[in-house]
Amino acid sequence: MADPATSPPLSRASVQAARELIAPYVHHTPTLTNRTLTQVASTPRTREELARAGGGWEKVEAPAHPKLRLWFKCENLQRVGAFKARGAFHALGQLLREEGFERGRGVVTHSSGNHAQALSLAARTHNIPAYIVMPEISTPSKVAATKGYGANVIFSGSTSVEREAAAAKVIEETGARLVPPYDHPDIVLGQGTLGLELQEDAARMMAEEHADQEGGRCSFAAPATKTDHAAAAAGEKKKGGLDAILAPCGGGGMLSGVALSCEGTGIRVFGCEPWHQGADDAKRGYESGARVEAVSSLTVADGLRTPLGKVPWHVIYERRLVSGFYSVSEREICDALRLVLERFKMVVEPSAAVPLAVALYNEDFRAMVEREAGPAGWDVGIVFSGGNVSLEALGKLFAEAEEGK
Amino acid sequence: MADPATSPPLSRASVQAARELIAPYVHHTPTLTNRTLTQVASTPRTREELARAGGGWEKVEAPAHPKLRLWFKCENLQRVGAFKARGAFHALGQLLREEGFERGRGVVTHSSGNHAQALSLAARTHNIPAYIVMPEISTPSKVAATKGYGANVIFSGSTSVEREAAAAKVIEETGARLVPPYDHPDIVLGQGTLGLELQEDAARMMAEEHADQEGGRCSFAAPATKTDHAAAAAGEKKKGGLDAILAPCGGGGMLSGVALSCEGTGIRVFGCEPWHQGADDAKRGYESGARVEAVSSLTVADGLRTPLGKVPWHVIYERRLVSGFYSVSEREICDALRLVLERFKMVVEPSAAVPLAVALYNEDFRAMVEREAGPAGWDVGIVFSGGNVSLEALGKLFAEAEEGK
Repeated sequence: MADPATSPPLSRASVQAARELIAPYVHHTPTLTNRTLTQVASTPRTREELARAGGGWEKVEAPAHPKLRLWFKCENLQRVGAFKARGAFHALGQLLREEGFERGRGVVTHSSGNHAQALSLAARTHNIPAYIVMPEISTPSKVAATKGYGANVIFSGSTSVEREAAAAKVIEETGARLVPPYDHPDIVLGQGTLGLELQEDAARMMAEEHADQEGGRCSFAAPATKTDHAAAAAGEKKKGGLDAILAPCGGGGMLSGVALSCEGTGIRVFGCEPWHQGADDAKRGYESGARVEAVSSLTVADGLRTPLGKVPWHVIYERRLVSGFYSVSEREICDALRLVLERFKMVVEPSAAVPLAVALYNEDFRAMVEREAGPAGWDVGIVFSGGNVSLEALGKLFAEAEEGK
Repeated sequence: MADPATSPPLSRASVQAARELIAPYVHHTPTLTNRTLTQVASTPRTREELARAGGGWEKVEAPAHPKLRLWFKCENLQRVGAFKARGAFHALGQLLREEGFERGRGVVTHSSGNHAQALSLAARTHNIPAYIVMPEISTPSKVAATKGYGANVIFSGSTSVEREAAAAKVIEETGARLVPPYDHPDIVLGQGTLGLELQEDAARMMAEEHADQEGGRCSFAAPATKTDHAAAAAGEKKKGGLDAILAPCGGGGMLSGVALSCEGTGIRVFGCEPWHQGADDAKRGYESGARVEAVSSLTVADGLRTPLGKVPWHVIYERRLVSGFYSVSEREICDALRLVLERFKMVVEPSAAVPLAVALYNEDFRAMVEREAGPAGWDVGIVFSGGNVSLEALGKLFAEAEEGK
């Protein structure tokens, strides 16, 4: 990995520069809207729904009634099926600029998830060997997918000590450079590029809608990038862009990058987590003022089981570029996931459904929006972070959710 | 229903006029590309794959090697989750123009599928009562969805005689007008509007890609409507638009509408069907010169169990606006569906996966493209006709496919 000391400063301008660097390699993914989800978000929940939801909501006296117009950033349509392609291409782009970097020595990481595939793709694209340390117990399909991108897979034990030891051995033997999944400025800046696209596309789409309305044309006549027009239909607000972005938070690389992309824009950024088995570590850390360094949760949102990294913490907490955190239950994640699949017709992984679950089901968030936004409501960007889930896993998930009811 | 004699002529100009009429009410859905699917389509199948596929492909001596760039028209993101919204809004638009049409008397149809929901939505939008005749055995979720759009649901027996009798009774009692699902010029013209959007959006995206390349920019830097850039990457062809469109064919309303939308453009249109239990009725009719009037198939592509209607037949066969038909097996449909869900991250219903199955697995189609297009290849539009499938149905489908292996 490039020495963090040589990384660009953690700023919005650096995110813009990162976008230029990775533009040839990643997709500018679409920003879409969906009438149904925006309607659900803008409808107060019934007392029966709150009672069924549990998790404390049964005590809510008056369900919140925020006006929310949702804008979905579809990183499930990104290369390798997740935003991780952005950080990996940016990290390698920075490495390649480094004097003395020897391409043939390769890069290494320990990951069994989206970062493994993203780094493998980026390395293959730049003709650099990639070594991916994966636990022996990884599912064969993930191993096959990583090998499919041309990476060398090295098996290790499952603990982080064993995995780090295996990576260290690769570095010793090959001179490969470590590319961590989130705790590095180059990764943070790369992931943040999705925030710029989301801001710009939503603002452009709002302007087009406004023009359509001025011209007397009904707001349902959409440009090709839209699947819906809820924003114009749902409110009278006439302004230039998003009010807030909700992003999932695992290690915090993407959340902190998105926060940097919004610095100085007035767009508030919130982190979204599951609370199952303490996976809401970033929220707890943010509220107590001390980063939580270890998490052991088997939340269904398997991309969010990681504790917040140090570099993200600096951006999120010390620089206060994130305005707060909200967490949701396992059932709320599954309910949101089902809505996305059945009503939005998009395949997303459970982690990617967490921000929508916050917008639909977290009464604290909803009451805050009602209070802050008033009748004008808020335009909220929702990051669909990835879509890597097998049909078998989905089937199992909903079978379990059914049993749990 | 408007008297067909008063309908606009079946021409490309009428499809353009239909687009103007329905623009305020339907989505201009996105046209997307996908690198993985385009790559799979442009890779010859192995002899092992052909042997496993069965259905006659095991006898193919040399697997075809066409160059195919695929452009997906995402009508799964249309209102009510399927292209049927277009025809329903157009049919009602024409009815409302009719002198003497009494809005309060309402409209009626017999359908348990997407047309029922589309007509219900269109009727509610125009403040017209809708009566939907559904078999008593319809799944509760479909009944609930139709009622959710404000329609009056009337239950009947399951045979077409019983359903038609129930509809006739509604007409007698209320004076409601019948809006059939496909066999009417107004429906055909409405559905055809998706063909215009697909042609124009694909051509625009190709032009943008070309400009990007001319400017020395890599073709991966995409505008917001794209998820991929396979077209530019896969070939050197520099021209203005699609070579062909593949559309599913049930009653043929959409296929014939798309064919009209392509008249005079040089874009060839092909119909795609399942062959299970004779569901390839349009193909058999087209090849024998006599429309097949009855079909009794339980193909997994449940939207395509209907025989071809008379008005579609006129456009498709008598006017020869469709260049031919291709059919696929149940397993090929499920394989294509899985690829769309897992690699494209889009939820589509089984019927919507049939054209992609033709492009990927039908050796007759593939050999034809190789022969006709040569090394330049073809840009092929693929119509994702709808996305209405429950997670439970998907789970069951893949469980059965697994057992069948």
